[in-house]
Amino acid sequence: MSQILKGVYVILPTPFDEQRRIDFASLKTLVDFELNAGVHGITLLGILGEVTRLSDTEKREITRAVVNQVNGRVPIVAGTGASGTDLAIMYSKEAEEIGVDSIMVAPPRLLKPNDDAIFNYYRDIAKEVHLPIVIQDEPTTYGVHMSPTLIARLSTIEKVDYVKLEDAPTPLKITAIRNLIENKLGIFGGLGGLYFYEELLRGASGIMTGFAYPEILIHIYESFTTGRRDSSRNLFYTALPLIRYEAQPLVSLAIRKEILRRRGLIKSAIVRDPATKLDLETLKEIDELLQIIKQRSP
Amino acid sequence: MSQILKGVYVILPTPFDEQRRIDFASLKTLVDFELNAGVHGITLLGILGEVTRLSDTEKREITRAVVNQVNGRVPIVAGTGASGTDLAIMYSKEAEEIGVDSIMVAPPRLLKPNDDAIFNYYRDIAKEVHLPIVIQDEPTTYGVHMSPTLIARLSTIEKVDYVKLEDAPTPLKITAIRNLIENKLGIFGGLGGLYFYEELLRGASGIMTGFAYPEILIHIYESFTTGRRDSSRNLFYTALPLIRYEAQPLVSLAIRKEILRRRGLIKSAIVRDPATKLDLETLKEIDELLQIIKQRSP
Amino acid sequence: MSQILKGVYVILPTPFDEQRRIDFASLKTLVDFELNAGVHGITLLGILGEVTRLSDTEKREITRAVVNQVNGRVPIVAGTGASGTDLAIMYSKEAEEIGVDSIMVAPPRLLKPNDDAIFNYYRDIAKEVHLPIVIQDEPTTYGVHMSPTLIARLSTIEKVDYVKLEDAPTPLKITAIRNLIENKLGIFGGLGGLYFYEELLRGASGIMTGFAYPEILIHIYESFTTGRRDSSRNLFYTALPLIRYEAQPLVSLAIRKEILRRRGLIKSAIVRDPATKLDLETLKEIDELLQIIKQRSP
Amino acid sequence: MSQILKGVYVILPTPFDEQRRIDFASLKTLVDFELNAGVHGITLLGILGEVTRLSDTEKREITRAVVNQVNGRVPIVAGTGASGTDLAIMYSKEAEEIGVDSIMVAPPRLLKPNDDAIFNYYRDIAKEVHLPIVIQDEPTTYGVHMSPTLIARLSTIEKVDYVKLEDAPTPLKITAIRNLIENKLGIFGGLGGLYFYEELLRGASGIMTGFAYPEILIHIYESFTTGRRDSSRNLFYTALPLIRYEAQPLVSLAIRKEILRRRGLIKSAIVRDPATKLDLETLKEIDELLQIIKQRSP
Repeated sequence: MSQILKGVYVILPTPFDEQRRIDFASLKTLVDFELNAGVHGITLLGILGEVTRLSDTEKREITRAVVNQVNGRVPIVAGTGASGTDLAIMYSKEAEEIGVDSIMVAPPRLLKPNDDAIFNYYRDIAKEVHLPIVIQDEPTTYGVHMSPTLIARLSTIEKVDYVKLEDAPTPLKITAIRNLIENKLGIFGGLGGLYFYEELLRGASGIMTGFAYPEILIHIYESFTTGRRDSSRNLFYTALPLIRYEAQPLVSLAIRKEILRRRGLIKSAIVRDPATKLDLETLKEIDELLQIIKQRSP
Repeated sequence: MSQILKGVYVILPTPFDEQRRIDFASLKTLVDFELNAGVHGITLLGILGEVTRLSDTEKREITRAVVNQVNGRVPIVAGTGASGTDLAIMYSKEAEEIGVDSIMVAPPRLLKPNDDAIFNYYRDIAKEVHLPIVIQDEPTTYGVHMSPTLIARLSTIEKVDYVKLEDAPTPLKITAIRNLIENKLGIFGGLGGLYFYEELLRGASGIMTGFAYPEILIHIYESFTTGRRDSSRNLFYTALPLIRYEAQPLVSLAIRKEILRRRGLIKSAIVRDPATKLDLETLKEIDELLQIIKQRSP
Repeated sequence: MSQILKGVYVILPTPFDEQRRIDFASLKTLVDFELNAGVHGITLLGILGEVTRLSDTEKREITRAVVNQVNGRVPIVAGTGASGTDLAIMYSKEAEEIGVDSIMVAPPRLLKPNDDAIFNYYRDIAKEVHLPIVIQDEPTTYGVHMSPTLIARLSTIEKVDYVKLEDAPTPLKITAIRNLIENKLGIFGGLGGLYFYEELLRGASGIMTGFAYPEILIHIYESFTTGRRDSSRNLFYTALPLIRYEAQPLVSLAIRKEILRRRGLIKSAIVRDPATKLDLETLKEIDELLQIIKQRSP
Repeated sequence: MSQILKGVYVILPTPFDEQRRIDFASLKTLVDFELNAGVHGITLLGILGEVTRLSDTEKREITRAVVNQVNGRVPIVAGTGASGTDLAIMYSKEAEEIGVDSIMVAPPRLLKPNDDAIFNYYRDIAKEVHLPIVIQDEPTTYGVHMSPTLIARLSTIEKVDYVKLEDAPTPLKITAIRNLIENKLGIFGGLGGLYFYEELLRGASGIMTGFAYPEILIHIYESFTTGRRDSSRNLFYTALPLIRYEAQPLVSLAIRKEILRRRGLIKSAIVRDPATKLDLETLKEIDELLQIIKQRSP
């Protein structure tokens, strides 16, 4: 099996203007920045893209805009999961038609956990699309816990080629999955990069995250994959204060949008409601962290 | 304050054909049946309508079809809640334009409970619409627990005129809310009618539920509101075996669709996946219950 | 395999005095009442016994008091689950030494669902006791969802001979378990008896519940097991208004204690805090229901 | 109001021998190590002490052993929360009699969130004890989300003098609480120290955590409180790789016990079941992290 997707995939946030409409100009700026920074791929319509707060039309428009802007330079992964199988199939087919390279499918919310229902959901979606599928293992938002055993079982479905982990502790989960199915799935880490170095050590193919300094993650990844582990680890440790700061629940996206705004990449840091607002102290803490990251970066 | 909505509001299921596409012919048959049965109003795009498994386009089409078919004969309430405020406003405005009489708004999912966020959500939606709003208090699906104190606070928002309860025990919650704000909100019971008689005793304005024999609920309601409490209670007790049977978690909707199919109102009992399938024993139990309900009905 | 436990097992509440200390005199009165009513067994230290609000000493004292009072007249099942394996083993051994006939083991709370961890927990407990084990499948309180597949797997552990279901819908779960392992486990229904008739139809060995009129459940059970199904069903339907009323979440135990108090079986209806208090309307509704149950009972 | 407790409070793990019995010798070694390291206080019977897996007798024995070993050298805080008010009062009184200086009270588990029930719980406990009370704000284990508004309300109860936060993001929560009640409560941070520097910046009085290198936290704290913020921050950043590594859900305690074992402070790293076991890669990652922490420590 050939796993083409690997490396640092940035999860795109959705920039909004002051009226909370999609700011497509900023979206294009952001895409170009990420590509110039050297990301290996782009993931859109993830939690970080506020996918649960976008209309079907908005999702299509974002997908089209990003596909056009990327223009084949790197692979694009689109989030297409839904509460129901039919809706997920519809989103998946639309994304395929627009021209993404892979779909990332979150499990459906279930009142009661049920491995068979989840298996059937992925199987039924896989039947209807021609693209490789990334399992989105994100229990915090979707409330579904996928065991390594279930993920191994999902890997028997044709086209299910990747898993993207947000289920902490990700390092142990990578090892548990690989003990069951070796490299049958390409594994992407997550959690904002908090365990990126360990994820790579354990055999991750890369990471998908919305960290606002993708160039640092790329450095870490490339040092690691070219055998310079000490260098990779040192870069990682240097970035940890900010990685950790961005990883705070509830405010993670707001912090990232604020940093992207300061970097001149998006016009407004607005997050769609309901959203926890950054307080003044957070803005000051961001000041301090960005100063330090600039001093300490190579 | 004038609360116009009261009585038995049936929550419409969404009929699908064997390819799981919306079956609009059955939808119209169903609407006519409900109106002939004498329901006081119709609620669409609730949990029972599989709203979380419909595309935005499908939601609009269902709303249009029902508004056309009802043609002003009874008030229509449309579910328009969403994970985010902007999306809920969009759904609400669309429903208003199509011509519904009220919107029923579920709270947004939140990683952490937060009364202020919920208040702001309802306040922001109320600013953008002209219709009366029904608070949908449904913690099982949405994971949000609204205390009587919060509901009382929401009632201070102009246009928030009703609450529909699914938070057991509903009888005590009705009393707790009325102790705080008397009749400021019209209160609809739920839970499939399992406590309908007690809800009425406690001052409910009516019920919203998808029980497959709306004519029985109407009988109970009209006996009650015309002062024949013993008769109302006896009718209620007679219907309890079926009410209780339909109220089973996970399979409630599938049981109702199966009964509606047997009553000749919809062509197929299909529920969109992931869904727990009825087993053979359930089909037999439905046989027995329907025989008895026919014998015992007045 | 011989499954000795079957029939109507009453789950004993823990009576408290006005200072919220255990009222052992009432406990003895209650035990004698249940035995005179004809229950086939007694279950203690369940959720309904407020087990999560008892000290280790209190648990021991209750177990001793009940074992003494029952004095071998019917089998006794004691709840001995815990958050950890070692603690569950300790409780189980203590119950065994005091002289109960079986232990009912709830799963441990887990931050993340994990079938293997649950299997190992039951296996390790089973190694340390000599009594038959009842799996307590109660997701509402313990937050653990056990699939029929997991329950079938647990049935391979020696001494794991029974399961007591509180996971709605229980009728379908009974059938799903029996489809996997036939009669390898004796299955007890629950949910306050709300689906008792269907549970029996599906092959349940009995029920464990704290319904305040055990004599009615015994009637239903004995009619059923002696082949008088219509009679059993009619008795069940007659009791449904009260069964349903007692089954209300949050206040179920308080309602039952209030009824037991009115029946002269316990001195006080006090429930340990935090507890939702019954309002005046609830007390009136109980009046009405008890009058009717007396009129309608055979 | 005088808040005496402040600084670095280590949460003691409970050392077990190979038979999973409490290893009191290691417990004493550990206490002496912590005091020599300079901790400002000791917290026992927290989540990290596996409190949910200890019998009542074991809790008492641990409390006695630690009180004896500390012998008045630093204040001791004992966890005494419970699922019910009466049980929490019993634990609190026992801890008071044995001689601890403060009690840390976790909220009771509730099927439905309910601010009034939580308020009454703390109020009723406070009536029965003479010690200052620390609110344990730990939603992950106890499932109770306490809003800043509720915490402010709890601070009106006499003796409720502190709050220990585990509810991420803790920095924003500290500010939100202080905006409501200034310094009415002493606030301890948590989350394994992941935001310790920001917590101090926001006005935390200290931290309670089980980080296995308390001497580093003490350094950070003392640098901070003596006005050397840059030094404090640099120390914090240096420790972040390990702080972050120990903070992994599910395996945090196992990692800490393994490190304490390597430091010669406890004989065995055993954690009571059900527990996620450390895999070989984790042991290697600990090797690497400990080497680095030794190189980088001042």
